[in-house]
Amino acid sequence: MEINGVRIDDTYAEAFPIFVSRVIITAASKRWAYKAAMESTGFATSCIGCAAEAGIDYYMPPQETPDGRPGFAILICNPKKEKLKEQLIERIGECILTAPTTATFNGITDAPEKLPVKLHFFGDGYEHQVKVGDRSCWAIPIMEGEYITEEEYGVVKGVAGGNFFVMAENQMAALAGAEAAVDAIEHVRGAILSFPGGIVASGSKVGSKKYAKFMKASTNEAYCPTLKGKVPDSKVPDGVNGIYELVIDGVDAKAVATAMRDGIRAACTVPGVKVISAGNYGGKLGPHQFKLHEVLK
Amino acid sequence: MEINGVRIDDTYAEAFPIFVSRVIITAASKRWAYKAAMESTGFATSCIGCAAEAGIDYYMPPQETPDGRPGFAILICNPKKEKLKEQLIERIGECILTAPTTATFNGITDAPEKLPVKLHFFGDGYEHQVKVGDRSCWAIPIMEGEYITEEEYGVVKGVAGGNFFVMAENQMAALAGAEAAVDAIEHVRGAILSFPGGIVASGSKVGSKKYAKFMKASTNEAYCPTLKGKVPDSKVPDGVNGIYELVIDGVDAKAVATAMRDGIRAACTVPGVKVISAGNYGGKLGPHQFKLHEVLK
Amino acid sequence: MEINGVRIDDTYAEAFPIFVSRVIITAASKRWAYKAAMESTGFATSCIGCAAEAGIDYYMPPQETPDGRPGFAILICNPKKEKLKEQLIERIGECILTAPTTATFNGITDAPEKLPVKLHFFGDGYEHQVKVGDRSCWAIPIMEGEYITEEEYGVVKGVAGGNFFVMAENQMAALAGAEAAVDAIEHVRGAILSFPGGIVASGSKVGSKKYAKFMKASTNEAYCPTLKGKVPDSKVPDGVNGIYELVIDGVDAKAVATAMRDGIRAACTVPGVKVISAGNYGGKLGPHQFKLHEVLK
Amino acid sequence: MEINGVRIDDTYAEAFPIFVSRVIITAASKRWAYKAAMESTGFATSCIGCAAEAGIDYYMPPQETPDGRPGFAILICNPKKEKLKEQLIERIGECILTAPTTATFNGITDAPEKLPVKLHFFGDGYEHQVKVGDRSCWAIPIMEGEYITEEEYGVVKGVAGGNFFVMAENQMAALAGAEAAVDAIEHVRGAILSFPGGIVASGSKVGSKKYAKFMKASTNEAYCPTLKGKVPDSKVPDGVNGIYELVIDGVDAKAVATAMRDGIRAACTVPGVKVISAGNYGGKLGPHQFKLHEVLK
Repeated sequence: MEINGVRIDDTYAEAFPIFVSRVIITAASKRWAYKAAMESTGFATSCIGCAAEAGIDYYMPPQETPDGRPGFAILICNPKKEKLKEQLIERIGECILTAPTTATFNGITDAPEKLPVKLHFFGDGYEHQVKVGDRSCWAIPIMEGEYITEEEYGVVKGVAGGNFFVMAENQMAALAGAEAAVDAIEHVRGAILSFPGGIVASGSKVGSKKYAKFMKASTNEAYCPTLKGKVPDSKVPDGVNGIYELVIDGVDAKAVATAMRDGIRAACTVPGVKVISAGNYGGKLGPHQFKLHEVLK
Repeated sequence: MEINGVRIDDTYAEAFPIFVSRVIITAASKRWAYKAAMESTGFATSCIGCAAEAGIDYYMPPQETPDGRPGFAILICNPKKEKLKEQLIERIGECILTAPTTATFNGITDAPEKLPVKLHFFGDGYEHQVKVGDRSCWAIPIMEGEYITEEEYGVVKGVAGGNFFVMAENQMAALAGAEAAVDAIEHVRGAILSFPGGIVASGSKVGSKKYAKFMKASTNEAYCPTLKGKVPDSKVPDGVNGIYELVIDGVDAKAVATAMRDGIRAACTVPGVKVISAGNYGGKLGPHQFKLHEVLK
Repeated sequence: MEINGVRIDDTYAEAFPIFVSRVIITAASKRWAYKAAMESTGFATSCIGCAAEAGIDYYMPPQETPDGRPGFAILICNPKKEKLKEQLIERIGECILTAPTTATFNGITDAPEKLPVKLHFFGDGYEHQVKVGDRSCWAIPIMEGEYITEEEYGVVKGVAGGNFFVMAENQMAALAGAEAAVDAIEHVRGAILSFPGGIVASGSKVGSKKYAKFMKASTNEAYCPTLKGKVPDSKVPDGVNGIYELVIDGVDAKAVATAMRDGIRAACTVPGVKVISAGNYGGKLGPHQFKLHEVLK
Repeated sequence: MEINGVRIDDTYAEAFPIFVSRVIITAASKRWAYKAAMESTGFATSCIGCAAEAGIDYYMPPQETPDGRPGFAILICNPKKEKLKEQLIERIGECILTAPTTATFNGITDAPEKLPVKLHFFGDGYEHQVKVGDRSCWAIPIMEGEYITEEEYGVVKGVAGGNFFVMAENQMAALAGAEAAVDAIEHVRGAILSFPGGIVASGSKVGSKKYAKFMKASTNEAYCPTLKGKVPDSKVPDGVNGIYELVIDGVDAKAVATAMRDGIRAACTVPGVKVISAGNYGGKLGPHQFKLHEVLK
């Protein structure tokens, strides 16, 4: 299979279940909502070393938010529900409640289950209940004025680790291809890219050969361009000298598949991109498989 | 004391010791260095609820960095040295090593002590040593190419919790004053603002009166404009209806004092700003006291 | 009429016919499309002193553009059709053709009339025709590779000068209200804000009293907060000390009315905003009248 | 000559005299100063088709500006002094006076000659004189409050058309190299890049072969990668498939030479960049020659 002359490998991304909540952050302007969204989704690339995976899902113009102000919907994800609850409390409490002009609302109203996030205790008894549309919220007096927040956030069983590789003639073409993919996936509701700028420069394998005693993950030498010809099992195609991976978490398999499709198509518009592939563990680890040729149909 | 008609309270900020390391992040462009800096300093507003306090210290043009590429110097801070070391490993490993085109270098070369950050194990034996100028680094093969990094980061005993309050006629004037202060402090080397966009909307007091059993911190009702007239000890001045706090961490007391001075002066250029004050605990908790009238001399 | 406690004056914006074309700029990434959009819509606030009025209409994700790359739709406007044609040629030729990775497409395909913009001559005979979807384009060899462009741009008779005033307790609250309005109007397709950041700080009246010989426009003293009490006919309401104007150009009256409605609603979410009004000339100059109470229904 | 394995051609950039003024734009925040700077330097890539060449020279933190607020210094350039004066009036009047919270100051105080820019007439008699430090300014009542401005701007005989070419394996590597150069040149005071994002995608030759009657400039086919092998005089080196040009205007030859040096060095850090060259007319047209091997010494 080819798109714009780019070869699409006949392989699949292997992915995993993860619990996901969505928080709508509104603010006096798009800009302040963005700053809170960035802080609250920071240090959240991979649950291997971070307490959560998180990212901006999509921008909500004033016309679409509960309080008529500009906002960003973010996703926060963790394989364990209890840890997700903790992360919601800490990330909202430390990074959004503290941010100028923000308010927070549940972003998955039809979820079967909700996690309690009792921020009103910060009000020390001075808080009071208010309605925003038909949402029951708390108004907490703070130094800037009042912080408005819901206290229950829907949680769903989503999908972590959807992915694809952008392989190109050289590093900069691969990066430009990955960036185009990021631009496309930004537009897909229900899917996030938790890595910096949406892109992974250093895809890893599980465990380590040389430092197995203390390393849970290490470089995936089969996909390192500088090791081509030096490792026996290199999977770097001929003519490829730079590879980036996009890793996608989503509220469901459909969101992840859509993100993969739209991201790959965008990457294939960039000159110098040669091959699209994907990462898996032979189907042994993750219950979800996203076949490239199927998602691109 | 007055600046541009803004009253400067005769009070002081009370601050605390904290361990601080600086990481220089370079990348192929300013933009990619910025993305890595934002991810690695995210979820790091206050050690009350985050594993570190962190922020961008300053931008380094290509002319100033070890490898001639654009970069950002970030500070990562923790009251415990061992925790700081862990945070360096996790934040560099998860948020910078994974980011496109980045390299990392020690940003306090003359520190008396250095923390080991052994990232080369990620290379699983394929890594090799290289020199960047006279710095000893590791080159780790990854999917994009090679990641270059130093493995020792200077640590100094810095200062956490330098602060001042911007008090204004209304919320938006206070926010604009705070933003001008952020713009000024960005230019002060050795000082960071770890909160979202550099600004705290919800200054807190230690502990809680009503929910004392489980709340370590709660809203500082004395400084809440909406509680003026409702709490007996309100410290919100007449004519003030919006307050923001700037909290500064720095590599030393001088950097914090300079940041306070330049930040306050900038805030005082914004129309509607009425009073500058600062937060302290009566001098009982922190060994550092920054008197507003002295730093502004 | 009131929204969130903000008084909406019972008045109207008076507006004028203008010719409008829309150019779709695509690029390898959202970021490069944005840079070209900013350059090509710069120095284009008002036809009083600029050769065009221009601005970004809306962002187009890769999923929506003719070539599957991210893009921005811009509007370029001039009261005279011939001048609009000249401006299309110069702004595309100098500011988009020259910009990295861009391509340009007609953004009003169903317009009754089209303006020729013959950029292929730049190719000096080396250009060739190509199809992008079902659009007939030229591919022009340039130093980066090839520039792809359509050569006919639809033109419609639109509306210039839709407007409203955001009046607030002080300057910074007015500015924050205006900024929220900009965030909302960004989401309205078919309408632009041609002034810097979308906001006018210095609304003007036609002509001049003191310098009538050489000034076509001068400050609108009736709306200057610092002149309240000093000019006989001040229209600055009690309690208002800062005013910003939003001026809207659109492809038709409906787009302008929608932008006014959504912008006003967003401005009314910002604390400190007191009154919304609008500018007109007593109905003597412009054929379009947008009554605030009607557009807000 | 080589830098990081990149060949530096033994050639020179040929450049021209141009009149240059610098305007310091300050605002309530860096962000608003930036918006005014972008609008006022837009549609100003080349005097071939624009009324001026203009760009941001450097950012000025609050600590460095006349009024203690954040600012940007911009350069506005034109080969004719009278046209430069007109452009100063129109660009300041239409794009900065109209922008939120701005003020404007002369950025070349030691220039031998000054151009009058009499904006105070906009005040229609309500304006008054004020001092900002030791600068004599006008305060003009406007809707947001007051606009402060100087009315004389120093003009110097500078240099236009300093340039170099970034030639790379493919388009995206060339673009990344050019972007690194932009990041470096941003730090050089006295030099601007007037093209979109600082980069030229479509370098031109004087005149046209096929359309000589009406085209003043056309594509420089000798430097078009897609025409290699199709034109007799191709100057695209072997292995090069993408080229971008950086064109520099400066207040003097030293600023241009420094910008060329720092920009080239930064471009040479990007993988995939192969050759740096420069554009000239055989020395027949411009009095300035910047030899690459000399500026890089």
